Amino acid sequence: MNISSKLLENAVNALATLPGIGKKTALRLALHILQSDKESVEEFCGAILGMRINIKFCKKCHNIADGELCNPCMSPKREQSLVCVVESIKDAMAIENTQQYNGVYHVLGGIISPIEGIGPNELNIHTLVDRVRSGEVKEMVMALSPTIEGDTTIYYISKQLKDYEIKISTISRGVSFGGELEYADELTLGRSIISRIPYKNE
Amino acid sequence: MNISSKLLENAVNALATLPGIGKKTALRLALHILQSDKESVEEFCGAILGMRINIKFCKKCHNIADGELCNPCMSPKREQSLVCVVESIKDAMAIENTQQYNGVYHVLGGIISPIEGIGPNELNIHTLVDRVRSGEVKEMVMALSPTIEGDTTIYYISKQLKDYEIKISTISRGVSFGGELEYADELTLGRSIISRIPYKNE
Repeated sequence: MNISSKLLENAVNALATLPGIGKKTALRLALHILQSDKESVEEFCGAILGMRINIKFCKKCHNIADGELCNPCMSPKREQSLVCVVESIKDAMAIENTQQYNGVYHVLGGIISPIEGIGPNELNIHTLVDRVRSGEVKEMVMALSPTIEGDTTIYYISKQLKDYEIKISTISRGVSFGGELEYADELTLGRSIISRIPYKNE
Repeated sequence: MNISSKLLENAVNALATLPGIGKKTALRLALHILQSDKESVEEFCGAILGMRINIKFCKKCHNIADGELCNPCMSPKREQSLVCVVESIKDAMAIENTQQYNGVYHVLGGIISPIEGIGPNELNIHTLVDRVRSGEVKEMVMALSPTIEGDTTIYYISKQLKDYEIKISTISRGVSFGGELEYADELTLGRSIISRIPYKNE
């Protein structure tokens, strides 16, 4: 490319580090930013940097928070003894958006994955064990990805908690709502038959 | 959403101002940024803000440049009397990438669009007329979008230059290379028959 500038290249490379954004899209975004006025670009960068530097994480569950604790952990309307274990803040948000859950969360910050070099010590598992030890937890719902890594993580956590009397469950797995059986993969379909649920005629 | 923070919201709103990025993608990007270390986020914002504040534009053609003039305008290998008029820097880059053009550019910074309130005075048309008046331009290729706005802009510029003896051409329009006739729109196909070109058996 003959038309270029070191500054533009830097910005394109920076934008291309974002997930799902390749060089072409990054160039489009950079040229858009170039055409915006300086104040709005300063605001843009201020919002991003401000978030990264000033955001707090809940001391209890590692969710994002405005203060010491996040909204669910502070809420008296929530069942504080029911803890949903999730991989990331995004997963907690997804569950929150279903409006079907009334407990609190615990964000692991990843799942055990030997291939990516993530072991139990890299995750927020010891704080989860601490929460259980303090006696506040009665039931734990494992809402991790239905993958080998997810299953490994569930297995590891359940081993850590075997001495405590709490109920551990996982979110149910099966065919998607609205999905067609024909297109469900064999593993999912197979599991959905094994873990079939009694039909309730309501 | 119960799990949230004012800082995260600000960052999501900022990212959602980028073209082609909605609230959902913006949230994904913001959570990615949240998990990056501080230094890399500082670098990221520095690259973007640095580009916007420090980048220079070519005094002759309004392209991006590292110095006073852009690469094509400085190059002795380029035909300086052949000027390609484009809407944006991105269009100039697209033409540059074809490696088929050996002249210089003139970036209008938009096209005449009464609906969006863009008139001739908002565009770099007077500097284009100045370039022609100085006698340096012999031929001008209009490489604007094949829309009513593009055609209006070409018409307006050609009117401004009617007193000068220069050759004005537009890029050819017709069916795309590799495209199937069946799927070409009627207007394009009709035009491509009217402006048919003699077949050369080489």
